[in-house]
Amino acid sequence: MMKGKDLITAQEWSLEDLEKVLRVAGEMKADRFGNKYANVLSRKTFLMLFYNPSLRTRESFECAATELGGHAQFLEPKSMRLKSATAAGEEIRDGAAVMSRYGGGIGIRILEDAISEYGEGERVLRGYARYADVPVISMAHDKYHPCQALADVMGLREHMGSLQGKKMLIMWSSGHLVRSWCSVQSTLLLALRMGMNVTLAHPPRYDLDPEVMEQGKRNAEQAGSTFEIASDLNAAEGADVVYSRNWMSPYRYEHGKETEVVMALEHRDWICDERLMAQTNDAYFIHPMPMERGFEATDGVVDSKRSIIYDIAENRLHVQKAVMALTMR
Amino acid sequence: MMKGKDLITAQEWSLEDLEKVLRVAGEMKADRFGNKYANVLSRKTFLMLFYNPSLRTRESFECAATELGGHAQFLEPKSMRLKSATAAGEEIRDGAAVMSRYGGGIGIRILEDAISEYGEGERVLRGYARYADVPVISMAHDKYHPCQALADVMGLREHMGSLQGKKMLIMWSSGHLVRSWCSVQSTLLLALRMGMNVTLAHPPRYDLDPEVMEQGKRNAEQAGSTFEIASDLNAAEGADVVYSRNWMSPYRYEHGKETEVVMALEHRDWICDERLMAQTNDAYFIHPMPMERGFEATDGVVDSKRSIIYDIAENRLHVQKAVMALTMR
Amino acid sequence: MMKGKDLITAQEWSLEDLEKVLRVAGEMKADRFGNKYANVLSRKTFLMLFYNPSLRTRESFECAATELGGHAQFLEPKSMRLKSATAAGEEIRDGAAVMSRYGGGIGIRILEDAISEYGEGERVLRGYARYADVPVISMAHDKYHPCQALADVMGLREHMGSLQGKKMLIMWSSGHLVRSWCSVQSTLLLALRMGMNVTLAHPPRYDLDPEVMEQGKRNAEQAGSTFEIASDLNAAEGADVVYSRNWMSPYRYEHGKETEVVMALEHRDWICDERLMAQTNDAYFIHPMPMERGFEATDGVVDSKRSIIYDIAENRLHVQKAVMALTMR
Repeated sequence: MMKGKDLITAQEWSLEDLEKVLRVAGEMKADRFGNKYANVLSRKTFLMLFYNPSLRTRESFECAATELGGHAQFLEPKSMRLKSATAAGEEIRDGAAVMSRYGGGIGIRILEDAISEYGEGERVLRGYARYADVPVISMAHDKYHPCQALADVMGLREHMGSLQGKKMLIMWSSGHLVRSWCSVQSTLLLALRMGMNVTLAHPPRYDLDPEVMEQGKRNAEQAGSTFEIASDLNAAEGADVVYSRNWMSPYRYEHGKETEVVMALEHRDWICDERLMAQTNDAYFIHPMPMERGFEATDGVVDSKRSIIYDIAENRLHVQKAVMALTMR
Repeated sequence: MMKGKDLITAQEWSLEDLEKVLRVAGEMKADRFGNKYANVLSRKTFLMLFYNPSLRTRESFECAATELGGHAQFLEPKSMRLKSATAAGEEIRDGAAVMSRYGGGIGIRILEDAISEYGEGERVLRGYARYADVPVISMAHDKYHPCQALADVMGLREHMGSLQGKKMLIMWSSGHLVRSWCSVQSTLLLALRMGMNVTLAHPPRYDLDPEVMEQGKRNAEQAGSTFEIASDLNAAEGADVVYSRNWMSPYRYEHGKETEVVMALEHRDWICDERLMAQTNDAYFIHPMPMERGFEATDGVVDSKRSIIYDIAENRLHVQKAVMALTMR
Repeated sequence: MMKGKDLITAQEWSLEDLEKVLRVAGEMKADRFGNKYANVLSRKTFLMLFYNPSLRTRESFECAATELGGHAQFLEPKSMRLKSATAAGEEIRDGAAVMSRYGGGIGIRILEDAISEYGEGERVLRGYARYADVPVISMAHDKYHPCQALADVMGLREHMGSLQGKKMLIMWSSGHLVRSWCSVQSTLLLALRMGMNVTLAHPPRYDLDPEVMEQGKRNAEQAGSTFEIASDLNAAEGADVVYSRNWMSPYRYEHGKETEVVMALEHRDWICDERLMAQTNDAYFIHPMPMERGFEATDGVVDSKRSIIYDIAENRLHVQKAVMALTMR
């Protein structure tokens, strides 16, 4: 029973529940406008709180609610009178309690410039989850992005079949976007649980959350997979999947965004290009998008036949429909 | 017949019509997703003009339209080319005429910082109402907030039964939010019509609109209820309901918002706390939200068993569904 | 077969297809909430990218999708991470590819202050159209506004019957709004194809796009209609339709908006007033709205019986429903 369940990180869901999501998502994709799930959210509302702007996430969640017969409201806290460190206003417990009276579920996106330190977004989500009576679903926050991880896994399986024992390189790449760690951390943890052998490669000073790294090791032990951290791109050798992504350093909220950009541009050689792909086992290329071409990957890689980024972007819709249907119905 | 009727203030609606709204709202609450009202607004649009940001109002109206099978559009005049005192653009008469061709009804929210003097919001609403062929519904403006008053009455009745002869204290409270008078004025007028004995208490310099005060006296005479104005909180004695709220002074648009905050914080003793509640007749606590905890009421009061603020917030949805169904169907 | 077709300019659609749109729009207007088209877009999403704010366009497209049983998402690129001349981010090709996975169609509005030179908006639309697998529909861009032209033609026919041989004066008028050329250019081209004899009148320095003028001449030749350009308002004589509109000069992006306003206000005599209308053949008055009264036309003209501006504004809804139904079904 997933009814009423929050989805803040896939790590808190059992593999059985996650497989159920993937199965339902597959069913929904195969018969997108069919009758089976047409009225699951009929006249119900999914309340989306976007502390951060987003294209893909807003489109995909709002389409998801529409396709289930319901409606998603696009809400921006800046147009609300919510209490914050610097402004008087309503507290999360009251906002969450009232939202539970109106909506069938609450989605929250909070990361990057909307927070002032890593972990703040996670705390906001946990706050809503504590006081809301309806499911709270992460639409990406500083720490996790569970729907992206599910979409990644769904896409990889569509193209590769079982992921057991397959090798994935997750590589930091250069760029201007100073992204939060959520997508990478969520996919890393889930891939390990799915039995993939993961190598995380990044230049010095681009470590991810140490707690997540510890969890990754535990996931690998439990699944019988391997998890390695590298400081070069040699792990491309024999990889079945390459995942590239620019992400922030742990110092982002201390030294600011501009310094991060300068720092990231010192590593222009960290790019997923044809030369790197040539060393792999004819790997699939994935990326959670939006993509900064020419920095995170070359056009040649992005537009190649092994790039499955659009399929994965599409899967965001299907896994989110499945999560909403299973938790909010 | 309420079809086509504007709702700018409940004062302009007969008690019969208001009772009809409350009856239908109760029916809708009892069978929220039932069939009876499922298609009342099928494929119809409710156009919401938010001159001011809002959380609860936007959520509740948009959910209301969705639950009636229709759709509410969230429109911000800042993203329009409307004529104003300082900007060339379209006049209300043309905007209202065209909106009447597209929508089944128009909601307008305009108060606080969106106006430059008390009364301007009311004039804007009257302007739309004059030129629109479809119902114009106040979603809160400087003078009135009829849907909040209806939600208050609905909630009080759910908990207390008949309101006849019950005593309500409406008290100003301290805080940073410098709110418009609409909620307080609307509830005060409607409570008196419903036969409640109302005492309005506030420090010097926090008078409400004198016209509304006169109307309050007339309402009391007609209903056989009493209406008193006090400058201390002794009226808590024996109260059946306490309504606390921070509101602006009549000088707000002359001396500006910052001065108002300073002025309001000089009265930190004007707060609804456990000591005050102890003097009442085990009163219910109500507040139109969003609530500034620690200023308008203490956590102890807000989280007590006699606090029915979430039920009333929920009732916003139901009374708005009823109003929309009855005026737009 | 219009399924899948882009609508960037009506000029690229055959007269047969345009007549089909007008026929379906008429049917939809006659039975607005009837069953025939009730589920054409059931659970489908129309993704609307508003690079520019808009009242009428947003309302009418969002209502259109709702009335066809679907949903339109109001998306503002400012809340996205799209690549631009000055900002790193996602490229149109990737955005368009992903939007095609989520939506049944894409609408784009880009003109006026959202671009830095005439033609940039057209290039953005062509970019989306190239990479999207679903119909891309102009919701007004710097060069064309096909839905406005269709609404104009639909409204004129409702009031005048056949347009063949009817005389239309399209006149520049004074004002503060420095508008893009799209509405005027689209209506001019389509009216000529429909057999109207068009005179375009404007003061010196208010020329439109020379390419469009050339196309206008070709349209006139093919349709057997006439197309003249005048520098005074004598063409009001005998006109069956007067279309007034303030538009920018070709120098707008060089000398800036403020200079444009000053320049436009030097021609306060370019206004559609009763004196001008008295010279016509009892002409209908049209304007694509929003209208700046007192500059583009006098109240006397706007509020006269021959003013059909609200009917035409309403027709935006109907033609857009028809276009969406025919291209996205």
